[in-house]
Amino acid sequence: MLHVNENYAKVKPTYLFAEIAHRVSAHQAANPGAKVIRLGIGDVTEPLAPSVIAAMHKAVDDEAGRERFHGYGPEQGYAFLREKIAEFDYNAKGIDIRPDEILVSDGAKCDCGNVQELFANDVKIAVGDPVYPVYVDTNIMAGRGNIQLLPCNAANGFVPGPEGCDADVVYLCYPNNPTGAVATLEQLQKWVDWANANKRLILFDAAYEAFIRTPGIPHSIFACKGARTCAMEFRSYSKTAGFTGIRCGYTVVPEELVAYDSNGAAVPLKPMWTRRQTTKFNGASYVTQRGAEAIYTPEGRAETKATIDFYLGNAKLIREALVAKGYEASGGVDSPYIWANVKGDSWEFFDKLLKEANVVTTPGAGFGAAGEGYIRISAFNSRENVLESIERMNAVL
Amino acid sequence: MLHVNENYAKVKPTYLFAEIAHRVSAHQAANPGAKVIRLGIGDVTEPLAPSVIAAMHKAVDDEAGRERFHGYGPEQGYAFLREKIAEFDYNAKGIDIRPDEILVSDGAKCDCGNVQELFANDVKIAVGDPVYPVYVDTNIMAGRGNIQLLPCNAANGFVPGPEGCDADVVYLCYPNNPTGAVATLEQLQKWVDWANANKRLILFDAAYEAFIRTPGIPHSIFACKGARTCAMEFRSYSKTAGFTGIRCGYTVVPEELVAYDSNGAAVPLKPMWTRRQTTKFNGASYVTQRGAEAIYTPEGRAETKATIDFYLGNAKLIREALVAKGYEASGGVDSPYIWANVKGDSWEFFDKLLKEANVVTTPGAGFGAAGEGYIRISAFNSRENVLESIERMNAVL
Repeated sequence: MLHVNENYAKVKPTYLFAEIAHRVSAHQAANPGAKVIRLGIGDVTEPLAPSVIAAMHKAVDDEAGRERFHGYGPEQGYAFLREKIAEFDYNAKGIDIRPDEILVSDGAKCDCGNVQELFANDVKIAVGDPVYPVYVDTNIMAGRGNIQLLPCNAANGFVPGPEGCDADVVYLCYPNNPTGAVATLEQLQKWVDWANANKRLILFDAAYEAFIRTPGIPHSIFACKGARTCAMEFRSYSKTAGFTGIRCGYTVVPEELVAYDSNGAAVPLKPMWTRRQTTKFNGASYVTQRGAEAIYTPEGRAETKATIDFYLGNAKLIREALVAKGYEASGGVDSPYIWANVKGDSWEFFDKLLKEANVVTTPGAGFGAAGEGYIRISAFNSRENVLESIERMNAVL
Repeated sequence: MLHVNENYAKVKPTYLFAEIAHRVSAHQAANPGAKVIRLGIGDVTEPLAPSVIAAMHKAVDDEAGRERFHGYGPEQGYAFLREKIAEFDYNAKGIDIRPDEILVSDGAKCDCGNVQELFANDVKIAVGDPVYPVYVDTNIMAGRGNIQLLPCNAANGFVPGPEGCDADVVYLCYPNNPTGAVATLEQLQKWVDWANANKRLILFDAAYEAFIRTPGIPHSIFACKGARTCAMEFRSYSKTAGFTGIRCGYTVVPEELVAYDSNGAAVPLKPMWTRRQTTKFNGASYVTQRGAEAIYTPEGRAETKATIDFYLGNAKLIREALVAKGYEASGGVDSPYIWANVKGDSWEFFDKLLKEANVVTTPGAGFGAAGEGYIRISAFNSRENVLESIERMNAVL
């Protein structure tokens, strides 16, 4: 008799965004004429940059002839992309990361979900509360129940410190999903010092770094001194360049990063992550990687920056509208997410906005107990829809 | 102190194809002028079908404007593709598989590697010997050391039966990688009956089904009576349509397929696989899925069939050349792989062909102990290169 992994049953049966999709579908079925505006799931709405489109067309044409045909690529990603990443995302900003420390993937969700395979079953995990559910769910599915929640609230500016954290691995995400909070260099340095002092690991999710505009806010954990010995970093083109449907991200694992075996001997993590990716993954699409490469051209950088500026403009409008209505709202400055205190039950508030304003948001409770009382509003939409949703929310709030 | 998953250290440190790549690089470095022909790793060489190219260009254009922009898709794959799969790969062949039993992914390697997450840690696995290394390595990395090897040899026509198999899960791959052997309906039916009688599971890897030309040879485990209650099936567009660099495959999980919890209660596997994919994966690229859809148009079907016919022509030439030289060679009929008995050490034979003929093959020992004494030759190359490699092999053998 084949036995299942019973840890799967310990995860809440419906993934947050699936539950939202279910409620929205039911609402639309009951109100066929309603024009629903989606500010819920953080999916982009603006087209890919022209440079990216051109590069992808060219890559498709490469696949049309024997001479430039690309079959299996390196599971770690093509050198042409890894070199651009090292140069533009790190070296140009004074951070020492080399191309062979970068592993390209089909998205940060996959990498954030798979990384826990590298650790022993009994390691203790720490995550923020509220939190992006993937960190928690993937550990529960692997049988890890020892999860420390780090409260993120108005009192600590939604950035917890390492004091009192006794986990082996901590997931940090800045700019944060869902709260939109950013961490200062000093705040991140405290985590790095804690990790190095205690042989712990930081998993740094920088999926939203391209939204940072405030000078001095770090774009990478590797801006901190000593991070190369205690951190992995996850990045995504989903929000940076609208790649949610194209699928590409990458993970940085410094050469000197180690964890330990049960005898206390150091085990380098880069070969382990490489083993994971070469054994269970076969590389991101060649067409996708050529598209990602184009983001680093002068045109690509200007185009993607303009799109993010546009989303940040939406975020500012939403945030200011909520504040004008008397809500405490954070985020929305270096982040596409606005995190608003709704002074009540978050699913009820979600349902109210859905049913009365035809606006989809994300209830804070879906991100953890400490998210109760908040909603997350995403700035990913057209200006027209954002303005209309603000008008509708103003009418019902 | 963070502890690693020590099971990773139990896997052989170098993945087979990485070792081959290493030896080929060293040979090329030592012989810069040598024109090496690669008949090793099973990577396609012919361009994508014109229908696929056209569909991918159109999909890239969709991403260039707001109106047809596709961001996050369903993690399970778009309905437009799942419906074509159900219709053409199953229903048209008299097999009852529904679109919602199909989960599209970025490739069969990923799915074959990830599927073991659904099972308890102490389940017993059975694989053929020789075997595609991913089945074994991914189980070892998860801590499963209880692996039964089913010898595949000339005596059983490289198709073992279920007699004596006491594993909970068996991986079957037909047409087989690496031996090129195919299984008859009767042979597969025995496995299905065994699995149903004993509450076991068959993981059927049908990545090479498009190469089957012999009438009566089943293309799917679901051609067997009762397979819906005991089998999952993995398919790939890598070989079917040259998608090794484009990344797309799918897994079929019938609605009624169950495994059991520790109390013996039935647990459906489709929701578990769906949970796995929705939590740790974010869907295959939209551009890729539109390309895959085009394979099912009349033109796409004719074009991809012609390419496979071409590879099968290569296979026939290689096989006949080896037989003419006095080698026992199987496969190469309903498969792109020829499996030849080299009457000696397989890595030595590999090195001989590399160094003396500048031809890359795959040593059978890399696929398991029972592969020792054989090499796998792949038919994926141009006709010119295949003919030249045959000439060179003839000169040194």
